[in-house]
Amino acid sequence: MKSTTSVKIWKVTQQQRIEKSDLLAVEEPVEIQLGIKGKPPKSISVTMRTPGHDFELALGFLFTEGIIQSIDQIQNIDYAKVWETDKEENVVLVEITDGVEIDFQKLERHFYTSSSCGVCGKASIDAVKFSGMKEIPTKTPAFNEHLIHQLIEELREKQAVFDHTGGLHAAALFDNSGKLHILREDVGRHNAVDKVIGAAILNGMIPLHDFLIMVSGRASFELVQKSLMAGIPIMAAVGAPSSLAISLAKEAGTTVMGFVRDGRFNIYSGAERIH
Amino acid sequence: MKSTTSVKIWKVTQQQRIEKSDLLAVEEPVEIQLGIKGKPPKSISVTMRTPGHDFELALGFLFTEGIIQSIDQIQNIDYAKVWETDKEENVVLVEITDGVEIDFQKLERHFYTSSSCGVCGKASIDAVKFSGMKEIPTKTPAFNEHLIHQLIEELREKQAVFDHTGGLHAAALFDNSGKLHILREDVGRHNAVDKVIGAAILNGMIPLHDFLIMVSGRASFELVQKSLMAGIPIMAAVGAPSSLAISLAKEAGTTVMGFVRDGRFNIYSGAERIH
Repeated sequence: MKSTTSVKIWKVTQQQRIEKSDLLAVEEPVEIQLGIKGKPPKSISVTMRTPGHDFELALGFLFTEGIIQSIDQIQNIDYAKVWETDKEENVVLVEITDGVEIDFQKLERHFYTSSSCGVCGKASIDAVKFSGMKEIPTKTPAFNEHLIHQLIEELREKQAVFDHTGGLHAAALFDNSGKLHILREDVGRHNAVDKVIGAAILNGMIPLHDFLIMVSGRASFELVQKSLMAGIPIMAAVGAPSSLAISLAKEAGTTVMGFVRDGRFNIYSGAERIH
Repeated sequence: MKSTTSVKIWKVTQQQRIEKSDLLAVEEPVEIQLGIKGKPPKSISVTMRTPGHDFELALGFLFTEGIIQSIDQIQNIDYAKVWETDKEENVVLVEITDGVEIDFQKLERHFYTSSSCGVCGKASIDAVKFSGMKEIPTKTPAFNEHLIHQLIEELREKQAVFDHTGGLHAAALFDNSGKLHILREDVGRHNAVDKVIGAAILNGMIPLHDFLIMVSGRASFELVQKSLMAGIPIMAAVGAPSSLAISLAKEAGTTVMGFVRDGRFNIYSGAERIH
């Protein structure tokens, strides 16, 4: 399945209206199923995503939700052929290694609700802390502020190559020499981050203490939470962060930058990592 | 609870690094509970949102998910004081009118999954069709293409007034004289649309056949689906639409415009409504 599709559109400017072809980002549902020996597959998530890197998406999702802790816990990942007419690759079956215990309660208990202390930002942050989040070292590689501007340029250039639709969010891992390690795109920004982290798991790169993750949109609580689960100490966002994203980053001692564009950015927490 | 909060940041430009105050969009979880006489309240959703217009959010969510069909089915909406220390208004209790039957299956069955025919875009679209979607008339008020450019300007101006954070998505209802009827903002774009539709329900404006909804971000499947539930024939998005959003709009015979900015836009479906 492709990640873009061509459609006929009317392009309307102040001067004229012309019919032409245009590319759209593909959005399709994917179901993630867990396979445990001796039991029927269990559906744990249905989400809209852009097809491509689906196994990384499943891995990253399971890891950042605290369902699996390492690649050893997975025996196999493949598309599930569940219907006769199943041409489309929209069901991913993750087979769990024999003997690994899965805490299915984690699936039902979202990070941001916790019945013991109520629904609020504080409870959401506490829930992340108890979810298997990696401790982030105080000292991790610092990034030069001039490099940050270069990284955003590189993200934009790479997006121009991959994203002909203007409809995809990107997430990318860089080290402090400016090297791009992993870049993934998706209509859902949480999916782009899950794909990056899934790829990092496959490459044996976890915990990602030496890296910065750059995201093309806003820095929400959910994106910071996912990054923390993978041990990433620095997030740089092209858009604005939310209040709860910053509260969580401060609590965990990590760095968040926002509005990284036009030769400037804001540091909301952890300024000591940016020199 | 406020929708913005002030934090200390470091503003880094090519020339200098200065400490200053900055506003962030507040992101906090909200739980929506349904109250049915004689039963304990049932939690049906926990989502991250920007506080404000929470009752509209709850109403819009219940309506666009097909759980309620009209305002008569609701007896009361209020914050639930469920914990002693509950200073924060993060639980909304929607009390259902006596005798109204609620189809709780709809809560478990997401639009984009359908066990009978598999997980795919086609199934997602079929699910919307059977969910209580309003039939949209072929003939609805046409909008002038020059007006579209004015509407986007008005959205931007209004966002500049309300959104000092750069972190909020907006959704707004306009009629074809250019009058702005409802504008709502939220860190989540689906919440902004739910709040607009919730407000329209409270104002007795459903079905919204005479209106255009403008959204500040991308046009996803979910946003088009929500608009269809409220009978909105035209969506104009500042960002790109997704493939499945356009497939759904074509199936329903509605109009979607994308990249509405810089004096131009694209029409992806239903061009006959734009003159």
